[in-house]
Amino acid sequence: VPVILDAKRGDIGSTATNYAIEAFDRYGADAVTVNPYLGHDAVQPFLDRVDRGVFLLCRTSNPGARDLQDVTVRTGEQIERRLYEHVAHTVAHAWNAHGNCGLVVGATYPGELAEVRAIAGDLPLRLPGVGIQGADVVEAVRRGTTSDGTGLIVSSSRAILTASRRHDFAQAARARVAALRDEINAHRR
Amino acid sequence: VPVILDAKRGDIGSTATNYAIEAFDRYGADAVTVNPYLGHDAVQPFLDRVDRGVFLLCRTSNPGARDLQDVTVRTGEQIERRLYEHVAHTVAHAWNAHGNCGLVVGATYPGELAEVRAIAGDLPLRLPGVGIQGADVVEAVRRGTTSDGTGLIVSSSRAILTASRRHDFAQAARARVAALRDEINAHRR
Repeated sequence: VPVILDAKRGDIGSTATNYAIEAFDRYGADAVTVNPYLGHDAVQPFLDRVDRGVFLLCRTSNPGARDLQDVTVRTGEQIERRLYEHVAHTVAHAWNAHGNCGLVVGATYPGELAEVRAIAGDLPLRLPGVGIQGADVVEAVRRGTTSDGTGLIVSSSRAILTASRRHDFAQAARARVAALRDEINAHRR
Repeated sequence: VPVILDAKRGDIGSTATNYAIEAFDRYGADAVTVNPYLGHDAVQPFLDRVDRGVFLLCRTSNPGARDLQDVTVRTGEQIERRLYEHVAHTVAHAWNAHGNCGLVVGATYPGELAEVRAIAGDLPLRLPGVGIQGADVVEAVRRGTTSDGTGLIVSSSRAILTASRRHDFAQAARARVAALRDEINAHRR
């Protein structure tokens, strides 16, 4: 079972180097989520671990995602984009030199998810927002998958953790996971 | 001695609520640094603690600060700004309702520091970058202080931690701190 440490790290290079050691060596994670706000050198120590994955926050699942991620930015090429589209473009075309990048895009925003998919090619997208946060998983799968029907890691946390408060927790949690898996697979292209 | 937990948190509201409890109740910090990328609801649980401080990352001290924080953004009022200026404006005019916000601005970039000061009024600015990162503390004090010569929290970490490897560490570290303090005070307006 691959482990993604959803730590949303974001710090200057010297600290990032130790956060990468923490995530990959101490905790043995296969991938980690990282905040892009501090720029390339803050992400580099994670990117350098070519056998591990780095999921950059792009368009997050929460209501406040609009506040900063949706501002219109004008890049050097005089192209206007939303900030999250600029992040998707930067990760896909500059930071993914080792082919170990992915993006975090909330399943709660299927329109933005489709736009990120259009920019990011076949980059893996991690989709929080399903379950307690209320995203429509069918819509997210339809709009977020690659042309061959893959490329998504759909994340549900609290809905699984709260499946039962009783002795049947393991069975109840397993049933919720299986139901979600079946719903996803039924709607893949 | 006030304690600022430089944890650079940034996560959705439910997680941020627990990060605020961790910072302020478990660790007893007086203030915490927070990444603004996720937007207002991800910062709200920290802001709600009206007796504690919240320092939002604005223009960080590292080389990669340019990558995202310097992109030109066009806001609703058709004003063009850099992203870090937009963050400074947002924090000063929207997120600081309880008067408990500050900004993190690298002392390594005195020009940008002066711009943030012009936008942020008398907001406290936390200045990393002095010491190992090589910032000119005199220039930072000249350009970052408020009109009454205050408003800065100058941070030096590794230069103090590495003051000595021997038994005289406590004295050596204290001497470095005192020298930095005196240099700061000598150049306050």
